[in-house]
Amino acid sequence: MEAKSFKRLPKHIGIIPDGNRRWAESHNKEKHEGYSYGINPGFELYNLCIHFGIQEMTFYGFTQDNTKRPAVQTKAFQNACVEAVMKLAHRDANLLVIGNTKSPLFPKELLPFANKRVQFGKGLININFLVNYGWQWDLSSNASKSIPRIDLIIRWGGRRRLSGFLPIQSVYADIYVIDDLWPDFKKDHLYEALSWYQEQDITLGG
Amino acid sequence: MEAKSFKRLPKHIGIIPDGNRRWAESHNKEKHEGYSYGINPGFELYNLCIHFGIQEMTFYGFTQDNTKRPAVQTKAFQNACVEAVMKLAHRDANLLVIGNTKSPLFPKELLPFANKRVQFGKGLININFLVNYGWQWDLSSNASKSIPRIDLIIRWGGRRRLSGFLPIQSVYADIYVIDDLWPDFKKDHLYEALSWYQEQDITLGG
Repeated sequence: MEAKSFKRLPKHIGIIPDGNRRWAESHNKEKHEGYSYGINPGFELYNLCIHFGIQEMTFYGFTQDNTKRPAVQTKAFQNACVEAVMKLAHRDANLLVIGNTKSPLFPKELLPFANKRVQFGKGLININFLVNYGWQWDLSSNASKSIPRIDLIIRWGGRRRLSGFLPIQSVYADIYVIDDLWPDFKKDHLYEALSWYQEQDITLGG
Repeated sequence: MEAKSFKRLPKHIGIIPDGNRRWAESHNKEKHEGYSYGINPGFELYNLCIHFGIQEMTFYGFTQDNTKRPAVQTKAFQNACVEAVMKLAHRDANLLVIGNTKSPLFPKELLPFANKRVQFGKGLININFLVNYGWQWDLSSNASKSIPRIDLIIRWGGRRRLSGFLPIQSVYADIYVIDDLWPDFKKDHLYEALSWYQEQDITLGG
């Protein structure tokens, strides 16, 4: 499918990749094992978005709320975030990691990419990655000020809510929910979301 | 239908009553004529929520964004908001109007109810009404600090977005979208939304 198949594409897509634990359970694995199956879907989606000429994507890595989960899960999603960034370093993106770096829950491997944009390869797309992010922390520190308004949020895993995802950038976003769990990502999910998005009228509240 | 039909009810429901202008056009009326048809649905919904024992509702009246519309529309939704409050004054509610009162776009008839809660009759339910509300104005002034977290947001008119509705209180809200336009409100809409809500798991991001 080509970009020209769509009459209007979002400039900035927010990604809420929910459902890793439910996917693990449904595959007879421990909940924490689900996170590692969420890495490849992110790269499939990244490739597709570059193909379509999407300018910017923001991925919900993990939040300060999430770190209240059992330690084995917290460790697993921290590791998955580090692995994702190490893989991205071999691709073509401008990475910005946003999150509370003052907490030990922020993976120290990601400090070099925090709060400043780092170019990898040809820098074909802006990728923002929320790591140890908290909406209250963000609102009080204006931490995400360099992330622009989001046009389309796609959430996997069936839940119809934002769960604290960038409250300021999300005020006018169109929200598309996919019932399939994130590790079950397939190209058609993005096509569906983009097809739906092009039919929405953009009023910015006006 | 009784409250006991539901195993779990939201304490605080947010209402985005969208679609008045589209409804007017589909009934061979001028767009601005639609707003007056949005008042009675609000009272039907108010009655049902008292019946179910809902503790608090927040209605999206109009926003600072909305006032960029043609003057005849702005006048019409201002009038509809005033009429709604004058009717509510004969019912049993604790009303709090939140909005920028320093602008001439805030209807002066509503000044007595702005930024403080006023009891009508037996005060059976808290009703918050956003009038000349702006999300940026709210975030910069902390104007809505007395409005608590929202559990369930119901939006009429098919659009899947928040359009600046109380960004802080909405961070964890479950969002239910009804395709019918607001003036076509019927009881089943609320039943559907409550039935769906009771099946959601509440994690508050955890």
